[in-house]
Amino acid sequence: MKILENGICSISSIKASGYREGKYGVTVLYHENSTAAAVYTTNKVYAAPIDITRKHLENGKISAVIVNSGNANCYTKEDGIKKGLELASLVADTLNIPVEDVAVASTGVIGRQMPMDIIKPVAIESLKRLDNSRECANDACNAILTTDTTPKECAIESTLDDGTKFKVAGICKGSGMIAPNMGTMLGFITTDLDVSRDILQEALLSSVKRSFNMVVVDGDESTNDTVLVMSTNEVKGEYDNNFQEALDYVCMSLAKQIAKDGEGASKFMEVVCNGAKSEEDAICVSKSVVSSSLVKTALAGADPNWGRIICAMGYSGVEFDPDCVSISIGSGSENVVIVDKGNITTYANPEILEAAEVIMNKKEVVIKLDLHDGCYSATAYGCDLTYDYVKINAEYTT
Amino acid sequence: MKILENGICSISSIKASGYREGKYGVTVLYHENSTAAAVYTTNKVYAAPIDITRKHLENGKISAVIVNSGNANCYTKEDGIKKGLELASLVADTLNIPVEDVAVASTGVIGRQMPMDIIKPVAIESLKRLDNSRECANDACNAILTTDTTPKECAIESTLDDGTKFKVAGICKGSGMIAPNMGTMLGFITTDLDVSRDILQEALLSSVKRSFNMVVVDGDESTNDTVLVMSTNEVKGEYDNNFQEALDYVCMSLAKQIAKDGEGASKFMEVVCNGAKSEEDAICVSKSVVSSSLVKTALAGADPNWGRIICAMGYSGVEFDPDCVSISIGSGSENVVIVDKGNITTYANPEILEAAEVIMNKKEVVIKLDLHDGCYSATAYGCDLTYDYVKINAEYTT
Repeated sequence: MKILENGICSISSIKASGYREGKYGVTVLYHENSTAAAVYTTNKVYAAPIDITRKHLENGKISAVIVNSGNANCYTKEDGIKKGLELASLVADTLNIPVEDVAVASTGVIGRQMPMDIIKPVAIESLKRLDNSRECANDACNAILTTDTTPKECAIESTLDDGTKFKVAGICKGSGMIAPNMGTMLGFITTDLDVSRDILQEALLSSVKRSFNMVVVDGDESTNDTVLVMSTNEVKGEYDNNFQEALDYVCMSLAKQIAKDGEGASKFMEVVCNGAKSEEDAICVSKSVVSSSLVKTALAGADPNWGRIICAMGYSGVEFDPDCVSISIGSGSENVVIVDKGNITTYANPEILEAAEVIMNKKEVVIKLDLHDGCYSATAYGCDLTYDYVKINAEYTT
Repeated sequence: MKILENGICSISSIKASGYREGKYGVTVLYHENSTAAAVYTTNKVYAAPIDITRKHLENGKISAVIVNSGNANCYTKEDGIKKGLELASLVADTLNIPVEDVAVASTGVIGRQMPMDIIKPVAIESLKRLDNSRECANDACNAILTTDTTPKECAIESTLDDGTKFKVAGICKGSGMIAPNMGTMLGFITTDLDVSRDILQEALLSSVKRSFNMVVVDGDESTNDTVLVMSTNEVKGEYDNNFQEALDYVCMSLAKQIAKDGEGASKFMEVVCNGAKSEEDAICVSKSVVSSSLVKTALAGADPNWGRIICAMGYSGVEFDPDCVSISIGSGSENVVIVDKGNITTYANPEILEAAEVIMNKKEVVIKLDLHDGCYSATAYGCDLTYDYVKINAEYTT
């Protein structure tokens, strides 16, 4: 597996662009006749573009995606559909493709009509810049951001067992309203491997489950979440699990970038749950801990208050024996065991708590849990809860 | 219904005491041969005192309760049980009652052995002060607090249909780790009405469902939650629903006091969901909104970002038609409708948003939702999420 340098433009037949004016940005991705699959928010209130994209993806084919930031186009009724289609038509007319082959996605404030007088000129400007270059990849990355502080991309080359080389490349945005099921996140992934629509959909679902769905910033699940993967079908080869692994890698990388850029976050947290009776149990326990406001504030204060960890495990809803649990806290090569199969190590060795405090002052902290009750594992990704999260979100619309 | 002045000591046969040294406090309540019922945390990791109290309440009778703050006596294994029983024995020996008639509760840091060298002298001092007076009621209220900033009590006199007057009085603590199911809250309620154990248990469950279980501060459910009600059985009368109403009133008052004193809270929020298909649906929707970090931070910033409200309704898991929903924001006699059966009123009248902002600057804000889909309602109670929540919790153990 090789990391590629050109982000979403690492696949040379993909054209990308991005343009921003103030808080409004528009990104376009383009490759005619791509096979496509997508996963959407499970929020009952979902944005107009999701309706449009779901419909346009019914035949498993698209040629372009247009994404705007600054307005979520959610809770906007018929007007929202109309304006979403207007953006799709703009792309279709410019690129001379059917409007049904254009997917649409939006992110921003909910419940306001799209200011087309602002967004349309931005979209036109973005479309003018459509090309394949490192600069275009940057622009595409940047124009979809909202409260994000860093662009997020990942591109790799991998190899099928038959020796065929293929690429997977993606960009995403997401920083707040990040919850158990994808938060306000938009992700767009491309590959050149010829993959059927059904396999693409299945592979995406599987990757999303382990990556974007394991990221929690604040527990609020957005109305606009979309992860879309499109294949240019240029590379033919005997399909095998290497594709899933490559897609997993890209999704996981993007998901971690979201957690690291969580609103106001100063630290990244990984919660690994091992030894669970089922994958579902491992997911529930790790997400419960990574989501806990009290664990998140303890991380912010570098306070090894592990009682909050066992507490969050306890209310996860999963059955386990608290007296068999192990808990450790680590960062890089450092790791301290605080609870060892139910035994609290810090009674005999109080200096362990000091070591844990030193670790919790690092930028990246890994909390490892073992239920000693089975062979399933899961990892959840999150960040600390800081003053800045409050600041950012107390002042977002006004 | 009449508000009584003497808190938990409004029932003259109840003796109460409280004493505190630094972060360790001990409260005792005493009335021999009380009928008793209790509701506990659903957290799978629960504290030693819960084991003890559950056992001692098996016959529906207790004579005293001892509560300590400063240490949760949770994740402390056999040693925790031993020390919990040691406190019960101290009460039993002092009051000359069987140890099995003493209930125990604790609140504080999880995963540390109880420092009996500190807590026992505090308990002895508390027991010395056991009496019936306004001062004793104050002490009992205060000694159970942890990060709470105000004592919480409520006492009322009510009347059965047959003319019998009876009293219900309670105290509680709770400020952080307050979640969908009772958070770190301890509540102790007394009544003089002669009620069977089964009716008492049923009435308590019903009241807790509508009060303590509807309070969310941070979504973390504690390991120690206990609400216990004891009846002195002095007042005989024809039991009717007036008792349930009185118990509801006291529980609701205490629950709201917890929400108002949420860690770092500057504002109190009530989320009323009307027009739901079932009570369960109404509970889910109102709790989802009151729990949302984004709604809570919007409240902190007095930002009428109602998109976050519809978003939180959407991920509550409840089926409803977003285009039929109404949302209003009010405080006292002021109220503005922002979404009226799916129509956003602020498009035509932008000044409505300004009015909403003025309302959100008040100390108590009511968000009213109507799903227009049935006749069930529920109300959830919470607070805003402020810098101070982060501050308090980033620095709690260290």
